[in-house]
Amino acid sequence: MVSDQNPPKIILASASAIRAEILTNAGIKFSVSPSFVNEAKIKEQSLRQGLKIPELVEKLALEKAAALVLGNDEIIIGADQILEFGGSVYDKPKSVDEARTRLLEMRGQEHRLVGAVCILQKGHKPWCYISTTKLLMRNFSDDFLKDYLAQEREALLTCVGAYKFEGRGALLFDKVEGDFFSILGLSLLPLLAELRRRNAVVA
Amino acid sequence: MVSDQNPPKIILASASAIRAEILTNAGIKFSVSPSFVNEAKIKEQSLRQGLKIPELVEKLALEKAAALVLGNDEIIIGADQILEFGGSVYDKPKSVDEARTRLLEMRGQEHRLVGAVCILQKGHKPWCYISTTKLLMRNFSDDFLKDYLAQEREALLTCVGAYKFEGRGALLFDKVEGDFFSILGLSLLPLLAELRRRNAVVA
Repeated sequence: MVSDQNPPKIILASASAIRAEILTNAGIKFSVSPSFVNEAKIKEQSLRQGLKIPELVEKLALEKAAALVLGNDEIIIGADQILEFGGSVYDKPKSVDEARTRLLEMRGQEHRLVGAVCILQKGHKPWCYISTTKLLMRNFSDDFLKDYLAQEREALLTCVGAYKFEGRGALLFDKVEGDFFSILGLSLLPLLAELRRRNAVVA
Repeated sequence: MVSDQNPPKIILASASAIRAEILTNAGIKFSVSPSFVNEAKIKEQSLRQGLKIPELVEKLALEKAAALVLGNDEIIIGADQILEFGGSVYDKPKSVDEARTRLLEMRGQEHRLVGAVCILQKGHKPWCYISTTKLLMRNFSDDFLKDYLAQEREALLTCVGAYKFEGRGALLFDKVEGDFFSILGLSLLPLLAELRRRNAVVA
């Protein structure tokens, strides 16, 4: 049954191009309103307080959503993704050199991407979905890495792992475990299910 | 170590836009040369001979690759995908009406996509990788289906399941099990691994 009410407006509180692309490809109507929170400070405080990584990524996604003003009949989507490798948490690399160092560290090793997507809407409890994916980086050659960095360059600095798995980043991996959309940074299927429950998209 | 020899040229023996897009996104250099085999006849004969679905899909992928003339220093990639639902094998729908019927049959049910990607190269045995993915189609409303068909229209007729999972097709599903690239029709990571072993891409 279709609700008589207008569906709530969907706002994506993220500057991530791939998150917007995932929603657009699925035919979802939404607007983008990137929000800014002091991620470094939240991470540092949260880890000091003993928050586990899934709790931290959920907190970051929620804070990003909460940083926007929430109107009536609006849904705000917040999302975040953290890379965990060898017990440490990594941010986006700040330079191509840092990306190179990161990739050399992770070469031949497994790392995890922990993601959260959250929804805020008046009259509803906050909703969050946490995903964990495991990626085994292959033992690529130095020649490969040189080519890869020369081709990707600054594009790498927008991704926590220094790779776009939907593009050339796939060349870094032999095997991944987990949902593709979660690797990209937005767990699409659970998000769609929740948007349907709220009549924000046609069920 | 980089080989002194020139890498073999890669030829994709498929007219599928998404297969070409997957390779292009990963930065692979290749040319497209769609080959034509009598798929209906091969399927009919093979099933009559008692071939199982993975064997059939492998055979189709191999025959598509073998239908091209294989030159020296060339790699031909063939691929195929079959939808199995309720013990039957499905072809691409021939009309939007047939797509509607198919989607109504599969609504609320699980189906499988069985895919094969093969490589032919002189001096090498044929190489094939078979994938099986399971997709649980959600119990969508008639209103949803009407919208979906109106928006997708003839685009549906290029896909065996009447959906493009990389696009609006994601709206049909609550849960999928298996590799994203395999669902799309080309198991990228095993293919890349084999191309590296043959020095066709930088390792």
